[in-house]
Amino acid sequence: MKQYAIGVDVGGTSVKLGLFDTQGNCLQKREIPTRKEQKGAWILPDIASCILDWLKKESIDKSQVKGVGVGIPGPVTSDGYVPVCVNLGWTDLYVGKELSDLLGGMEVRVGNDANVAALGELWCGGAKGYQNVVLLTLGTGVGGGVILDGKIIDGVHGAGGELGHIIVNPNETSRCNCGSCGCLEQYASATGVVRVANQILSTSKESSSLRQIKDFCAKDVFDQAKAGDAIAKEAVDVLCKYLGLATASTALTVDPEIFVIGGGVSRAGDILTKGIGFYFEKFTPILKKKAKFALATLGNDAGIYGAAKMVL
Amino acid sequence: MKQYAIGVDVGGTSVKLGLFDTQGNCLQKREIPTRKEQKGAWILPDIASCILDWLKKESIDKSQVKGVGVGIPGPVTSDGYVPVCVNLGWTDLYVGKELSDLLGGMEVRVGNDANVAALGELWCGGAKGYQNVVLLTLGTGVGGGVILDGKIIDGVHGAGGELGHIIVNPNETSRCNCGSCGCLEQYASATGVVRVANQILSTSKESSSLRQIKDFCAKDVFDQAKAGDAIAKEAVDVLCKYLGLATASTALTVDPEIFVIGGGVSRAGDILTKGIGFYFEKFTPILKKKAKFALATLGNDAGIYGAAKMVL
Repeated sequence: MKQYAIGVDVGGTSVKLGLFDTQGNCLQKREIPTRKEQKGAWILPDIASCILDWLKKESIDKSQVKGVGVGIPGPVTSDGYVPVCVNLGWTDLYVGKELSDLLGGMEVRVGNDANVAALGELWCGGAKGYQNVVLLTLGTGVGGGVILDGKIIDGVHGAGGELGHIIVNPNETSRCNCGSCGCLEQYASATGVVRVANQILSTSKESSSLRQIKDFCAKDVFDQAKAGDAIAKEAVDVLCKYLGLATASTALTVDPEIFVIGGGVSRAGDILTKGIGFYFEKFTPILKKKAKFALATLGNDAGIYGAAKMVL
Repeated sequence: MKQYAIGVDVGGTSVKLGLFDTQGNCLQKREIPTRKEQKGAWILPDIASCILDWLKKESIDKSQVKGVGVGIPGPVTSDGYVPVCVNLGWTDLYVGKELSDLLGGMEVRVGNDANVAALGELWCGGAKGYQNVVLLTLGTGVGGGVILDGKIIDGVHGAGGELGHIIVNPNETSRCNCGSCGCLEQYASATGVVRVANQILSTSKESSSLRQIKDFCAKDVFDQAKAGDAIAKEAVDVLCKYLGLATASTALTVDPEIFVIGGGVSRAGDILTKGIGFYFEKFTPILKKKAKFALATLGNDAGIYGAAKMVL
């Protein structure tokens, strides 16, 4: 009898779901809105009814489903407990147990979304074939995921792989959303690279194509850097430098085989992996053999892939 | 029949060996010189004959020995391979296999000395009862060891837990021994804190009791800081700040239960754990639940304890 796994990626706006076979093929996808009202009380029931309806429609028996993996945008402990998830309105919720009950006892595993995405890239994406992987997701913020020997490092308090808040510039005076100053996220996120570019523009008199673009975005900064604009290049260099520093710290802690760069910003491509690799090399003279750098390939689907892999 | 384990800590000057029961009691210790001539060719044969002689003298049969664990001052992969160990003269050596052959097939496990010491502190020292531990050893240099779920994180290239070379000050211009600038070791080792104190003294006109001590050492800096000397306090504060920064980075990567501070500098005591804890708190506003800080308790014996634990 054919076996399946279901991967669920819970975001602040929508929940993505994927039906997978055990080889890593995504057979079908679904997407439902994330109902955050009443402290997110409807999110798990909505996911459960979507899954049950789906299995019925496809004539898949529960016994054919190895389990349901779920990625959550916040800290999760390895037993599926979520102390608090601001983006969904949850507090003090045993997500694994609750969803399993709603699904009539199916196996449910829960992980932090960035960690789960790292597992997805390891299974079927930019880190396929590797077992020791660190993913950095450069989006609105910076997320991270650490996988050692094929296993997600959740951390004792659910904060494993929170790489976006590693302090890379102890002299920074602007504050990060987290309350700290000098976090990686302040330089290496989509908002961060725009912030840095604007800072350079405001203190420089040099001409720059960025001055012609009203409310430019991260993509503009990379495009102009590729076209040779000096100020855009400087902002990209700052981003690469601090990513080089953070990946160096990570390498000296867990020493992975490969770093994978994902998230919207990673669409900039090789300019990013080459730039980060340059600084990583510079900041790790002690390492004789070095980790590789690669781009993520699963895009927004990394979460459902990794979530499904959690139960296989 | 009573069971035993042997722990071996190979240092640049001497090799320490401990005979343990399986409960973590060190029954006897031995120490032999480290013969580094001929590219360290005698080190493993010396260890083997010491062990074989010891077992004979104590009438312990090989079958009663669960194995021999060995800590090495350099990177080791989990299969006991040492690519290069500058301090011992070794290159390209399968330490585990060679020593096992010399011991007539006994099980041998090999690890980096700082990682192994962390395992020792977890088994019988300052982190007893914990399974997720990060050790920082503040001596001439700064070593580190990461243990997750009771297992040493060696790293794919044997560089797991090389925390002394995390860059904590990207603006530093003085160079670390490793070739990089701004490594933790430059501020938080015994030599580091003296260097920082001398730097502050040379740029300050303030009076300081340190000015009266010719060639003061790390202990002097801590003693004078405890006695209230402002410049000594500032040097200790720099050390605590950068240790706070490095432990924060580590917590955001692997999120352990406890950090243990060992090495000669740790004899300074609570001033250290309190100071580091203060900055750790400051640098991790994103962590709602935080790791604890404790002092190591096994001193120079952490290595033989952890080495023995590797084979149990």
